[in-house]
Amino acid sequence: MTIHTIEIRERVMAKNDELAGDVRQRLAQHRVTALNLVSSPGSGKTTLLENTLARLGGQIQIAIVTGDVQTQNDADRLAKHTDKLVQAIVTGGACHLDARQILTALDRIDLTNTDLLFIENVGNLVCPASWDLGEHAKIVVFSVTEGEDKPLKYPKMFREARIAILNKIDLLPHLQFDLDVALANTREVNPELEVLLLSAATGEGMNEWCQLLLRSAKS
Amino acid sequence: MTIHTIEIRERVMAKNDELAGDVRQRLAQHRVTALNLVSSPGSGKTTLLENTLARLGGQIQIAIVTGDVQTQNDADRLAKHTDKLVQAIVTGGACHLDARQILTALDRIDLTNTDLLFIENVGNLVCPASWDLGEHAKIVVFSVTEGEDKPLKYPKMFREARIAILNKIDLLPHLQFDLDVALANTREVNPELEVLLLSAATGEGMNEWCQLLLRSAKS
Repeated sequence: MTIHTIEIRERVMAKNDELAGDVRQRLAQHRVTALNLVSSPGSGKTTLLENTLARLGGQIQIAIVTGDVQTQNDADRLAKHTDKLVQAIVTGGACHLDARQILTALDRIDLTNTDLLFIENVGNLVCPASWDLGEHAKIVVFSVTEGEDKPLKYPKMFREARIAILNKIDLLPHLQFDLDVALANTREVNPELEVLLLSAATGEGMNEWCQLLLRSAKS
Repeated sequence: MTIHTIEIRERVMAKNDELAGDVRQRLAQHRVTALNLVSSPGSGKTTLLENTLARLGGQIQIAIVTGDVQTQNDADRLAKHTDKLVQAIVTGGACHLDARQILTALDRIDLTNTDLLFIENVGNLVCPASWDLGEHAKIVVFSVTEGEDKPLKYPKMFREARIAILNKIDLLPHLQFDLDVALANTREVNPELEVLLLSAATGEGMNEWCQLLLRSAKS
């Protein structure tokens, strides 16, 4: 039975990779940069996106595909800032978005008038690491309240990511959190990873993040 | 292909339920109460367990099975407080412990001299909700830094749990977190759920939690 499970899994993953290739092609046709945001639940992805849309909405055209296990809370929050929003409901206990859902979502987005596409994945540091969605880069968001050890505990995710956002730095004075240890752990797992220190709540670090996005959207 | 995936999944789950029954029987033979701790990554399960062992280690005999995706950080931290510790390494991108791993772990624990068994599951609010480990109760840990919406976003987990621990309440003065909303969300999803407000870091609420554990271990 184990062998059958593995065979099925391999076929599912192979199909996903094929569909991710289709996503990539569609994005390239329309010169859209896609960023896949992954994190634990509650690390602040939606607040980060809200503030990003508020700052950049006038400069570039941003679309969002948001994955949510059950509610449409995130979609409701984001819909206030953009009319290019598609919610992918993730059912049946799945813990990640897959390329087929992105491909379906793209049909509902005006890609000709889109510069940047954010994919807000399900809050989970394990499953989404293994699923190619056809994105240009994965961005892992983790927060200082989660402890310094997250890169070591979820190395696959931190290796797959090109950028890490360390969020909620406004809370540092109230925590026993050693920033140097956290950064060393990040480097140990992925020396190439670019780390941005940020507080989506207070806005600290948001300028640097937005500059990076503007560069990505135009490259 | 979808149908095959579902069939295999059903067979895997049925096998897990059978093994969970075996776990339950083994625990009953030795009158051991087993509690399955589930949460997001970084919500404070390990700190909670460290402080619980420090407080109750002299009164009851506590064993722990800890699941970790990659490191043995948690096991190292807990090993300082108990000699009844088994680490179950979760490999291959799995996002939860299963009953077979618990059954194997029980072989390495002196159950005759154990009152209470903690299972520290993988940090994930989706997958562990679907897997019966033969435990007496699931306890979901979430923290005030994760936002008020977690019960609504992960309702299956909050419905499966008998107790919820809302951790890190020492940070409340520094957050925009509405405790009443969080508690209302919890009640909406599971009116029977007992919620404990706690800070594993400062010790607030630890007495009530320990009293609850002492009652569970003797029932």
